Amino acid sequence: MAQKLEKITARDVDFAKWYTDVVKNAKLMEYGQVKGTMILKPNGFALWESMQNYLDKEFKTLGVQNVYFPLLIPESLFKKEKEHVEGFAPELATVTMVGDKELSEKLYIRPTSEVLVADFLVNEIKSYRDLPIKYNQWVSVLRWEKTTRPFLRSSEFLWQEGHTFHSTPSEAKKLTLDILEIYKKFVQDVLLIPVLTGQKTDHEKFAGAKETYTMESIMYDGQALQSGTSHYFDNNFSKAFNIKFQNSNQKEEFAYSTSWGVSTRLIGALIMTHGDDNGLIIPSKIAPKQITIITVNNSEEVVKKGNELLNSLKNIYRTTIDISDKSFGYKMAESEVEGTPLRIEVGPRDLAEGHVVISDRISNNKTKVMFNEVVSKIKELLDEYDKNLRLRAWENFESKQFSANTFDEYKKIIQDTPGFVEVPFCGEISCEDDIKKKSSTVSRCIKDFNTKNNEVCFNCNSQAKLHTYFARAY
Amino acid sequence: MAQKLEKITARDVDFAKWYTDVVKNAKLMEYGQVKGTMILKPNGFALWESMQNYLDKEFKTLGVQNVYFPLLIPESLFKKEKEHVEGFAPELATVTMVGDKELSEKLYIRPTSEVLVADFLVNEIKSYRDLPIKYNQWVSVLRWEKTTRPFLRSSEFLWQEGHTFHSTPSEAKKLTLDILEIYKKFVQDVLLIPVLTGQKTDHEKFAGAKETYTMESIMYDGQALQSGTSHYFDNNFSKAFNIKFQNSNQKEEFAYSTSWGVSTRLIGALIMTHGDDNGLIIPSKIAPKQITIITVNNSEEVVKKGNELLNSLKNIYRTTIDISDKSFGYKMAESEVEGTPLRIEVGPRDLAEGHVVISDRISNNKTKVMFNEVVSKIKELLDEYDKNLRLRAWENFESKQFSANTFDEYKKIIQDTPGFVEVPFCGEISCEDDIKKKSSTVSRCIKDFNTKNNEVCFNCNSQAKLHTYFARAY
Repeated sequence: MAQKLEKITARDVDFAKWYTDVVKNAKLMEYGQVKGTMILKPNGFALWESMQNYLDKEFKTLGVQNVYFPLLIPESLFKKEKEHVEGFAPELATVTMVGDKELSEKLYIRPTSEVLVADFLVNEIKSYRDLPIKYNQWVSVLRWEKTTRPFLRSSEFLWQEGHTFHSTPSEAKKLTLDILEIYKKFVQDVLLIPVLTGQKTDHEKFAGAKETYTMESIMYDGQALQSGTSHYFDNNFSKAFNIKFQNSNQKEEFAYSTSWGVSTRLIGALIMTHGDDNGLIIPSKIAPKQITIITVNNSEEVVKKGNELLNSLKNIYRTTIDISDKSFGYKMAESEVEGTPLRIEVGPRDLAEGHVVISDRISNNKTKVMFNEVVSKIKELLDEYDKNLRLRAWENFESKQFSANTFDEYKKIIQDTPGFVEVPFCGEISCEDDIKKKSSTVSRCIKDFNTKNNEVCFNCNSQAKLHTYFARAY
Repeated sequence: MAQKLEKITARDVDFAKWYTDVVKNAKLMEYGQVKGTMILKPNGFALWESMQNYLDKEFKTLGVQNVYFPLLIPESLFKKEKEHVEGFAPELATVTMVGDKELSEKLYIRPTSEVLVADFLVNEIKSYRDLPIKYNQWVSVLRWEKTTRPFLRSSEFLWQEGHTFHSTPSEAKKLTLDILEIYKKFVQDVLLIPVLTGQKTDHEKFAGAKETYTMESIMYDGQALQSGTSHYFDNNFSKAFNIKFQNSNQKEEFAYSTSWGVSTRLIGALIMTHGDDNGLIIPSKIAPKQITIITVNNSEEVVKKGNELLNSLKNIYRTTIDISDKSFGYKMAESEVEGTPLRIEVGPRDLAEGHVVISDRISNNKTKVMFNEVVSKIKELLDEYDKNLRLRAWENFESKQFSANTFDEYKKIIQDTPGFVEVPFCGEISCEDDIKKKSSTVSRCIKDFNTKNNEVCFNCNSQAKLHTYFARAY
């Protein structure tokens, strides 16, 4: 197994096949026994762990506290918020038995936890003094999907779900947007993935939300990927669950709530934004391994030098060494397909000449670096590597922005040069249904509400109310 | 809600009631809607998070990698290891439907993941070069329980489950014991809970294991609590799942495996080891909040001084400040019931005199400390606090060790002065069944195998094979 790397299909030949080839070869995941489930292997989980570490700290700066709500939701509880249950009903995995005994009430495996949080808070929130409440949990959720793809769409996936309750609508709305900003900063500055952010149309907003804000990235193939969402509920959930508090004027009021999440889908975004025909490419800040040291052979001097390098680097960079008896070529290929930013090669000839060879995962240029200059050179090479990765991602992003004024123009663009297409749009659910039926696409996010008088919807020709991005999407 | 603290039942009046009172008042958890499930509130989850952070680093020093295996296990897979399925069958929550459609095969919510890991590794392990494999996951598991108690026994609980595979029995056995040592070090040195460690009897070992090692603590009331286990499977699971590898002599061999786990039960152990009639007491190394600064009033100078103190301490200690408009008395009671090691009080009179008042959660002695001496004094006070906490725990532990040679002696001890009772024991499953029936107790762990000729079992009078600790247990 470990001694063989399979060939990766070229990106431009078959992007979907390329994607699954990379996922497999980079040892990120394996399919689970239950259809649509995933086993996150060490390389895949390490990426998620890096993301968790970064985001968890950011959430905490906003006063968010981690909690754990149970996995199972009684049917009666789920049915309290009507839109919400309608949105999820067909995808719910249902526990009906324990051992060989039937349960008296069906229990759903959580597809998300709004109803559990709301039900719990009824008894916790009495006064404005008890607010705001800002919870988050890192868990898996289950939504049965017909067609699944690793990381992008799976029946079970890992995510974080934030749930907050506030005493004023403005505070709740601000939190919704603060979280969106944290997501955007993380995705753009750490994952080096450019995104559009904005509001979802009524057609696309979350079941039960008043407003949904989204972060949309564009993949190498021009398809959009929703990479994170933040929902403002107003007091919808509080009304459905009767969550009232006494405000500072001694009046009873319903609380205002939000929820927000990103998932292992971000791993899919990472692969499809940065990967190339040789495999995965990981930005240095998020890379579980930033540097791999590989030895040309296992002679005593070579291994000794490798370990010396490891010791000088490992407290500064996430560094590993491969001194196994695998061939040098195999070790190189493995570090490449796994997307490690920098590779340091140590061989007997290098030792004699007093240097090592460092190459980066994008350019693959080999740089000879004297032993005593390795630590300082690494910083320079990683900075250069991230700069190039960012440049490439933004170039792709810019090149895939289009606009259209009619449905025919729109359709031609998404067929010939897929990407984000800005259009004037009426915003009606029925019109978006019609677009979906005709093109299998829906809106990604609203650009602005600044339409001119007499500017017409690209599809139905009624007055346009907004400018929206449409795209093919994962 | 937040403005009221309920009275805590005294420990010596009703220990069980005391326990649930503390759990509630310290805001650790709330019962979930589904019987036997728990909502971990911020205070409870923060304790678990502290434990995770510590243990995760330790596991990684042994080369353990984090992974994620799916939540659901197909019935056919679960049935592959016979003892294992028999051990868990009556407790399995079973998914039979998705939406309104029946599934063709029953899916179990994981009670533990041995079978998922084994099934996955069949295709991953080919050669000795692929070994060892050392996986761990931090997840929730579900085992339907008839009687449940917060943290101690719940249908769903959070834990870590480690699963490793090795090319030799000795390496697997060593890993089993290395993990037990990590657990013991953590529980004794960080949680300050004294434990006995040793092997389980055949009656008590894990379903499917060859040997189970356990860590047993003794609570304030003299009942034992199993606080963590590490299992050596030999090649039982590999045989059931056909996990073979080619060894370095080109011969096929079954792999040797282990599994090990600790759970949120450790929170229960913490409460029942250290808590007192005023609530929770948390050792400083694991305390999510080590210091709480509370202000006597909200005047500008007092709040300013409080924030100054916060800023001088927060990079060294986990420090929070409560400048809410709750009463001073309420703030004191809250910090006390939540078990925060140190409390710093800042009031106008203290300000005028140039000091603050620091008190610790065990002695409750108030120490006046000049502003410029706070940082250095804190270290001294925390060390003293941990020392006293440890002393008290070990004293209780020592005072609850007994020995008996006959069943009558044994029964009298567990009725009158519950604790660990060392007995000579035959080790037979049938004899332990009999003891269980007569006394509702089972063995906790084996002390040694050094019995003398003619030393007889305390229950059945046949030749004793081992010295074992028996106890009432949670």
